Amino acid sequence: MTSHAIRHVRVTPIAFRDPPLLNAAGIHEPWALRSIIEIETDSGLVGINESYGDLPMLEAMAKAAPALTGLSPWALNDMDTRVTALVTPRQTASEFQGTQISLAPGTHVSKTVAKVISAFEVAMMDLQGQLANAPVVDLLGGAARESVPFSAYLFYKYAEHIETPYAPDPWGETLAPEQLVAQARRMIDAYGFKSIKLKAGALPPEQEVAGLLALAKAFPGAPLRIDPNANWSVSTSLKAVEQLRGVLEYYEDPCPGLEGMAEVAKACEVPLATNMVVTDLKEFRRNAEMGCPVKIVLSDHHYWGGLRATQRLSLMCETFGLGLSMHSNSHLGISLTAMTHLAASVPHLSYACDTHYPWQDDEVVQGGRLKFEAGGLRVPTAPGLGVRIDPEALARLHDNYLRTDIRNRDDLAQMRKYDASFTGAQPRY
Amino acid sequence: MTSHAIRHVRVTPIAFRDPPLLNAAGIHEPWALRSIIEIETDSGLVGINESYGDLPMLEAMAKAAPALTGLSPWALNDMDTRVTALVTPRQTASEFQGTQISLAPGTHVSKTVAKVISAFEVAMMDLQGQLANAPVVDLLGGAARESVPFSAYLFYKYAEHIETPYAPDPWGETLAPEQLVAQARRMIDAYGFKSIKLKAGALPPEQEVAGLLALAKAFPGAPLRIDPNANWSVSTSLKAVEQLRGVLEYYEDPCPGLEGMAEVAKACEVPLATNMVVTDLKEFRRNAEMGCPVKIVLSDHHYWGGLRATQRLSLMCETFGLGLSMHSNSHLGISLTAMTHLAASVPHLSYACDTHYPWQDDEVVQGGRLKFEAGGLRVPTAPGLGVRIDPEALARLHDNYLRTDIRNRDDLAQMRKYDASFTGAQPRY
Repeated sequence: MTSHAIRHVRVTPIAFRDPPLLNAAGIHEPWALRSIIEIETDSGLVGINESYGDLPMLEAMAKAAPALTGLSPWALNDMDTRVTALVTPRQTASEFQGTQISLAPGTHVSKTVAKVISAFEVAMMDLQGQLANAPVVDLLGGAARESVPFSAYLFYKYAEHIETPYAPDPWGETLAPEQLVAQARRMIDAYGFKSIKLKAGALPPEQEVAGLLALAKAFPGAPLRIDPNANWSVSTSLKAVEQLRGVLEYYEDPCPGLEGMAEVAKACEVPLATNMVVTDLKEFRRNAEMGCPVKIVLSDHHYWGGLRATQRLSLMCETFGLGLSMHSNSHLGISLTAMTHLAASVPHLSYACDTHYPWQDDEVVQGGRLKFEAGGLRVPTAPGLGVRIDPEALARLHDNYLRTDIRNRDDLAQMRKYDASFTGAQPRY
Repeated sequence: MTSHAIRHVRVTPIAFRDPPLLNAAGIHEPWALRSIIEIETDSGLVGINESYGDLPMLEAMAKAAPALTGLSPWALNDMDTRVTALVTPRQTASEFQGTQISLAPGTHVSKTVAKVISAFEVAMMDLQGQLANAPVVDLLGGAARESVPFSAYLFYKYAEHIETPYAPDPWGETLAPEQLVAQARRMIDAYGFKSIKLKAGALPPEQEVAGLLALAKAFPGAPLRIDPNANWSVSTSLKAVEQLRGVLEYYEDPCPGLEGMAEVAKACEVPLATNMVVTDLKEFRRNAEMGCPVKIVLSDHHYWGGLRATQRLSLMCETFGLGLSMHSNSHLGISLTAMTHLAASVPHLSYACDTHYPWQDDEVVQGGRLKFEAGGLRVPTAPGLGVRIDPEALARLHDNYLRTDIRNRDDLAQMRKYDASFTGAQPRY
């Protein structure tokens, strides 16, 4: 009988072009890092996934990978136990050098175990789907929707990186309200998105509020969101939401901390969403015990422990009357496809998901860039994830990685190249 | 290409001998009812399950079954949506005539949708396992343990039913402490159970406390539990637990209502367990919002909405620091096998599970009665549930059903045959 036991895990770090997008922590570097995971069985099947590419995560995956040898692709609980034993927060705490913890919860030390489990789980479920001749969405209970809606994720940005390592991206500068509307128009024309999210916390609040009001005027009826990434004080948050009255679908992480969010919640009608203060089970419980000041969890299977863990989170959200949507980081098509399978399988998903995908121009999957229809992605029906790696693309993207000296995302240091006085202290406004 | 779409659902009610077991509501009738579910695909595969057999449940399944036609066995979310649309609590409320709601949460009207979904889900997962060539436990994330521990589930009982419809069971009468110890000895010798649960609330509390103390003396070190099925007042509950100091592993539903349980919890060190006041998500939330007076949820996939829903419940328990184990009703081997797959796949399961299985002497699966080893059941490794129906046994058990006029479990009416003055009013003590 053919053995489908896992024989080998390969993790390939990659880098791809990323525009000079502004946020609360600083500005995106010219290269975004990810990792491509390939898990091979004795029978020669290969399950794939995409995850974080920062050095501590690569080290954690390298440490955990040998534990998978000999496991059945179905043995997710076993994998979980083995990975947890090998990659504990204590072991990795001293290794961790990141500075982005307030921005990208995926880089929290406490998330390392969940991140590694997720990185391997999705690849193992890709294998399961190949074994069962079923798409991953079916392994998750089947599609509750045929197409998963995503939102137009707008950023303030410069026209080009300070290092000018490659030709400027086609989006140009976005700082003034009319530039923001033009960015939205361009993105919506290309992808068909119905909802709009503005990454804020980068420019003075009055400028960002003016930007959002301009969007509301230009796209009447489109659900609008703003995400200052906790870079506003409670009073700034309340002042801004007052100016945005009648405009917001939800208000994402205006100010730091669950206590701050609770203060804002008390005085504002718009539901608060977060990917910063409810990022794990402990925080979920704390929010519940505080009477749920946060009303919408922006989940991310990459750090919530995988597709199945995020499905379980959806039941918790349902139980406590919370909405659910999805957070994103700079990523390529494998992550986007995994998100699509997951989102399709979660009936409770209440809002269009975030994705940075329009900001990337490269791809690692066969067939190139994924195609959106009317702002959504159809759920693949081929076995497993339904996307395969393009080996030449992987080689090229790995080559990018070898050529850049970026090993940990550092938006703060990058911003200091533009403005030496930038401290990144938050909340800034 | 072969179609594995669902073609037909068959639900066969069965009845099997059940001993005259005493409980808070009265006494078991001579026949226990269940239903056997068979879901057939166009390709001729058959997925099976076992569920409740009371008339309202049979009617609800009959109403919902046509909705499955044409569905893929993977389409659990679709099944959920369709069943929910067809079987709403409002539709079934007027049909419901049961009297056992305080005893058997599976008969709560509000549980009908979850019960039907569970009945179909397990059979569909049996089909999935056959399609994927994987046991159900693998579809649930793989085994976290090789063997699932069950507990010795002791009952006070009479020697035979008042109607004497068949030869008396071999267990004899259990009323006095020494009879209880003998029952435990016999059951533990036969099955190897390590934990002991006493169904209480049937005799005067002092007699039951004496019974438990006798068990503690006869089986030193064995985890002991008592379940008065909410038939004790708060003060009786507190008095009894004081008399049982140092003896109990957990204290199951001593008194009625979450408020009552909270009063007991305040004054007692033993953790409270329940299958009566945290039986759905709304009650889970209420318990959490009250600071978790109930510390252990005794789940039951038959009314929690299935195997996957119970897995999700386990994460909720983990999040709120609650323990998890499993409740049972009178059942045969398919239910027991489904419980075993589920329990094996839930790392967080913290206690040996309940089962009424030793009280039954018949079986519907091929190969006859399931074999326990050291108080546990090994997780099947064959595809799907790993058990198949014995057609002759099914015919015989269905014949039992046709010959009895019991259509809804009614322990109260049965007890009135023994004692016309019995009212079943609770809490009795």
